[in-house]
This record gives sequence, C-alpha cells and structure tokens, in this order.
Amino acid sequence: MAKVMIIGAGGVGGVVAHKCAQLPEVFTEIVLASRTESKCKAIAEQLSRPVTTAQVDADNVAETVALLQREKPDLVINVALPYQDLAIMDACLEAGVDYLDTANYEPPEEAKFEYKWQWAYQDKFANAGRMALLGSGFDPGVTNVYTAYLKKHYLDEIHYLDIIDCNAGDHGQPFATNFNPEINIREVTANGRFWQDGDWRETGPLEENRSFDFPAGIGPKQIYLMYHEELESITKHLPEIKRARFWMTFSDNYLKHLEVLGNIGMTSIEPVQFEGKEVVPLQFLKALLPDPASLGPLTKGKTCIGCIARGVKDGVEKTFYIYNICDHEECYAEVKSQAISYTTGVPAMIGAKMMLEKKWAASGVWNMEQLDPDPFMEDLNKYGLPWQVVEIDQPTGMED
Amino acid sequence: MAKVMIIGAGGVGGVVAHKCAQLPEVFTEIVLASRTESKCKAIAEQLSRPVTTAQVDADNVAETVALLQREKPDLVINVALPYQDLAIMDACLEAGVDYLDTANYEPPEEAKFEYKWQWAYQDKFANAGRMALLGSGFDPGVTNVYTAYLKKHYLDEIHYLDIIDCNAGDHGQPFATNFNPEINIREVTANGRFWQDGDWRETGPLEENRSFDFPAGIGPKQIYLMYHEELESITKHLPEIKRARFWMTFSDNYLKHLEVLGNIGMTSIEPVQFEGKEVVPLQFLKALLPDPASLGPLTKGKTCIGCIARGVKDGVEKTFYIYNICDHEECYAEVKSQAISYTTGVPAMIGAKMMLEKKWAASGVWNMEQLDPDPFMEDLNKYGLPWQVVEIDQPTGMED
Repeated sequence: MAKVMIIGAGGVGGVVAHKCAQLPEVFTEIVLASRTESKCKAIAEQLSRPVTTAQVDADNVAETVALLQREKPDLVINVALPYQDLAIMDACLEAGVDYLDTANYEPPEEAKFEYKWQWAYQDKFANAGRMALLGSGFDPGVTNVYTAYLKKHYLDEIHYLDIIDCNAGDHGQPFATNFNPEINIREVTANGRFWQDGDWRETGPLEENRSFDFPAGIGPKQIYLMYHEELESITKHLPEIKRARFWMTFSDNYLKHLEVLGNIGMTSIEPVQFEGKEVVPLQFLKALLPDPASLGPLTKGKTCIGCIARGVKDGVEKTFYIYNICDHEECYAEVKSQAISYTTGVPAMIGAKMMLEKKWAASGVWNMEQLDPDPFMEDLNKYGLPWQVVEIDQPTGMED
Repeated sequence: MAKVMIIGAGGVGGVVAHKCAQLPEVFTEIVLASRTESKCKAIAEQLSRPVTTAQVDADNVAETVALLQREKPDLVINVALPYQDLAIMDACLEAGVDYLDTANYEPPEEAKFEYKWQWAYQDKFANAGRMALLGSGFDPGVTNVYTAYLKKHYLDEIHYLDIIDCNAGDHGQPFATNFNPEINIREVTANGRFWQDGDWRETGPLEENRSFDFPAGIGPKQIYLMYHEELESITKHLPEIKRARFWMTFSDNYLKHLEVLGNIGMTSIEPVQFEGKEVVPLQFLKALLPDPASLGPLTKGKTCIGCIARGVKDGVEKTFYIYNICDHEECYAEVKSQAISYTTGVPAMIGAKMMLEKKWAASGVWNMEQLDPDPFMEDLNKYGLPWQVVEIDQPTGMED
C-alpha cells in the first residue's frame, strides 16, 4: 500500500505514469503533478486506472510542500526539469517524503553537470531519516547499476569503463531533438570530459570520436565522447577505475544542423532585439522545431545503451559488454512514447519500486551504483528493458 | 551640366554616389534619396564634394513625383529594392525624368524575375520622349554589354552563351549573405532555368552544377546553374542563340547553411506564432545575420564575372571568354564597399553617364545589349572595372 507522486508531465513523466499504473500492487495510488495540469490530465486519460492530477510550480518550495502535505505520498518521482531538483528536494525534506530523480541538478544559467549540490543534502536526508535516490533513469541509472552488477558478478576490479549510448532510430524529420531542445543543445555543445588516472581530462565539444559496431543488427555508428554525469559518481564509488568515458552516437546530419544553428546564433540564450522586443534565439528555435512529443508515433528503429568494462577476475584480464536493446515502435505501442523517454521512465519506476518495497532502503542521498544491483536488474528484465552480458574476446576499438 | 538623383542608400547606392561624385564634369549635381535619410547623410559624409540628401518613400508615387518636381534631376538612378521599380518608373514618367535601374521588377509576394512588367512601359516612355535603361548593373548589365561587344567585334553569330559569376571572396564569417538576405535566399532557392533551342528548360534549385577553373589565380570552383534575368532579354535580342545559361559559385559551407536554415523553417516567409505575436522566420534570421554592410571591411579576395560565348566568325567556330576581375579590398579602400556592391554600382554610374552624355539616347525602354557597347566598354576600363577577352582553344567544361 504505497502512494507515489510523479512531478513532471513530459515524455518521461508519461512513461513513468504508464509503468506505475501497470503495477497497482506496488503503486496503490498515483498523483501526477505538473506546472500545466492539462498535460497531466492528457496522460491520465491514457492510463488503465484512475490517477489524481494536480497543478504545481515545482520551483516554488512552499507550493510543493503544500501539495505534498495535502496528498501525503510516500515518495516523489521527480521527472521535471533538472533545474528544479534542489527545490523539490527541499520540499520533500520539509514534508517528510522520500525522493527520486533521473538527472542531476544543473544551474539554469550554466551548462554544468555536477553532483556537488545534491550530495550536499547527504546530512539533511540522513538526519531526517529520509532517502533520496539520484539519477534513476537509463544513463545515469541503469548504466550505474550495470557497472555495479559487473563488479559484483563478473569482475573483481573494473579498470576501464566505456558507457555507450546509441540511438539508431529515425524520426524521418530533417532535424528535431529527441527531448527538450534547449537541454539537448546545451549538452552537445559542452566540452567533452573523461576520467583518467585519478583526474578529469577535457576535450573540445565532440572532438574525440570513432566508429563502434553495435549489436542487434544496428551495425557501425560514429560515437562521440561527451561528459555525462554518471562518470562523476561511478569513479567516486569505484575508485579502482583507471579510465571512464561516455560516448553517444550522432548522425552527420544532426551534427551539421547543430553546427549551422550555432554558427548563426540560433542556439544562443542571449536575447537579441527584434521588432521592438527581446527574443531569445534558442526559444525561437524551439518554437520552429517539431515538438519532441510529436515524434513518438513517427520514430522507427532501436536504441542500444550499455557498458563495456575491462578489468580482472581471479587475476585474469577480462572484458564484458552489457547492454539493452529497445525498439521505438514497440515502446510507442505500449506507453505512447518512443524509446528515449521509455528507457528513462522505466528505470525511474523500478527505482521507486525498489524504495517502496524496501529492497533499497537507507537514509541519506544515494547514487545507483551504491545499492545492491540484483533486484533492480531482475526488474529490468521483467518490466521492459531486458539486458544481456557478453564476454568480449575480440578488439572492439575501445581499447585505447 | 546635369543633375542626377540616386534613390537607395544601401551598399550599391553608396558606390554609385562615390563614383558620380568622382566625375563632377558629368554629374554636376547629385541628390541622394532614401526611405531613411540618415543613411544618405552617412554616405554624403564620405564624399569628396557636397551632395543633397532627401527622404522619400519610393513605394509612394506621389511622394516621389513631388521630390522630382522639387529637385528637377535629369535622370533617376534607381538602386532601391526591385519591388519598387514600377512605382519609380511611374514617378519618372509623371515628372518627365529619365530612368535607370540595376535589377528588374519583382513582385514582392513571389520570387519571379521577368521583364514583362517593365517592357510594358515601352509605349509610355516612347510617347513621353523619355528613356528608361533597364538592368545597368554587372549581371544584368555588363554581362549584356559583354555579349553585345563579342557579337559586334568577335563573332558574327553567338550560338552558346554561359554567363559565370564567381565570388571568390571570404568575409571570415561562418555565414552571411552579401546583400539583403531575403532577396539572396529567394534567388538561391528558386528553380534553375536556361534557354535551349527556342524554349526554357527548368532544373531543380542548384541541381545542375560542375567545376569551372577561373583565371587570375582563383582556380577551380563549383558553379551552379540558376535563372538570372539577363537571359530573358539577351535571348530575345540575339535570337540566333541556341543555348544561354547563367552560373554562380557557392561554397559548400554557404549551401550547407542554406539547406539547414531551409530544413528548420528559418527561410520561410510564413509567420509563426511566438510568445503571443507573429514572427516571420526569415525576418528573424535577417536580424541574427551580420549586416551585409558590416562585411565590407572584412572581405578579402576577388570576384570574377564574365561570359563565355561560342559561335562563328567568317564561317569558323570560335569561343571567347570575356571577364572582369575585381578585388574586394581595393574596392573597399576606394568607396567603402566590397566588390559585390562595387561591380553593381560602377556600371550604374557608367549607364547614367552614357545617357547624360547622349552616347545612349533613345526614347523608350531599353536593355543594355540593344545599345552600342563600345563607349560603355571604354568606360569600364577607365572607371574601375577593366576587362579582358581571351580566345579559348581548349575545352573549358562548358561545352555541354
């Protein structure tokens, strides 16, 4: 008998609501809240059982606290914007509610992904006897659990870790971003960064890249080194790691569009004067591009996200590749969202399930790799994100 | 003793004003008029002798007539927008003033370059005893005169004509248009069209292209077949021409930017709803791009515009290439504009000089190739646009 409140009614919020609604034995009651309640109601209409909807401005702590005190959920699943993490954590502390999110806090005025702001809540959550689970999406989230699982069962020590995120889907549009274009573009235009020999190394934006041959018929794709937030927590919690990198696929077409839009100033967040008012170019770009939600029914193909870990087992060097394959069209058929939202929303549901079932229960602020991977891995197979581990005995191109 | 009124104070208007001011024995008095008089004053300050400035809305015939009646020029040099040609012709007829422009009338609501609207003024100008000289820029303008000159001195008949416009300059910006971006983009995204065997043939936008090796150290560049207005008048006045084409160079980088801007809808003239008001994407793009005038001091390199004509002389097939090389930095040093404006503005001044000196004097509406090319060609050499003719005896790649 547990009650959960989902804050955020974008693509991921929709998936979380669908998946929680499918498990009434765990999620007895569901509240879906967002700045725009009509978006919650639209999701609610797709579900197999009734849920409560509510309007909330998650930037406003007092407003969120009032809603939490009225609804009294056991857990908040925060799938709003990453700018809002701290405000929602504050509200959870004040209302005495557990917390889960899928992406770390990011200050709105700079593209800076760091856990320091949220880790600083460690004592507050511990003292309050409350749990905050950080980054329970796919990457971060499943990739952290994959790493912990390989460490628990396949390798005594992990020395080299490559997390590789491939979207081999095609939405048929000349250009569109798969989620909020603003967040997307901030991420892609940032410098690359990876962990090596106890320190961070920087690259230019998308500077380091190579071809990787993906399984399940996807084949070779160009992958680009980026910074991604799970690198920070994984290298902290697995200090034996010598090198940890994150890679993502981008098509030449996507990169060409981004380059041009950057060149002409369309990705800038600096307002320009236009016909007597201030216009932020990136906001106008957002207005021109297809709504990411509209791409769901159009997207075909697969995603493949996984980890390649090289280390030692019983004194022998071994390499394992663990990954999930997800199909855009199958996701849409099940929850009215494509695989990008699906692969983030399902792990959020499973993380919440771990907490409500007390399989993961501990006061304080936690990253995914700190907790026992086994029950989470079992649920990934049950609830739509099956994985496999293969031992690699041929070069993959990721050795250097 | 002649007085000229220049309407239009953009890049070309500035060049025309500079060049007319350099020839006080021809252009005794100069009036510079524009919708924005401050732009006229800014040009006036650069000149070696005083000129009169005036404010005029050239779309408003009565207003233009009133200004003409007040100033009483002998000739109007129209270097305003091509949308305004007919209104200014009407005003000239009413005020009894000769007329010259550099680009044919184009209805604002469609990208349609045709002489029919201006040719329809033939009787009006003839009956009024007034002269209208159409298209006295470089292309149209000098290219028409080049063709007439080759026909007069080098070939009895011209059978194949290729006009090739190369801008090998570099302004150092990732993307910028050399003149009004709206006009530029309308031109480039239009279908290609060329004359063959008595009829027009269409191609997709920029579909037909090849490499051409330019002289003066410019070397090979990709050239793209476009429609250009001088093809219409030249094939009418030289009916022996079997095929006439117009080509322009574009860099891969320029085309990549145009493609992306088209894909995301930024070149559209259809308004979109944005923050409670209607915004025309192309207008917003114009606001983001560098002001073409700001490129003048930044542009380096050369332009090369010319005609390759193949035909017969005394029964023998011959091919000639006639062209001008113009240097962006030298132009800027002389008249504070780069070569794109310079190559249009100098021929406008020379056309006006031909009319005021009565070397070209005839009632009615005239295209450049209908008039004696010799005095105009002589002035091109004198006033900044020297040309050369070479006989071609090797394949140029333009034979098919």
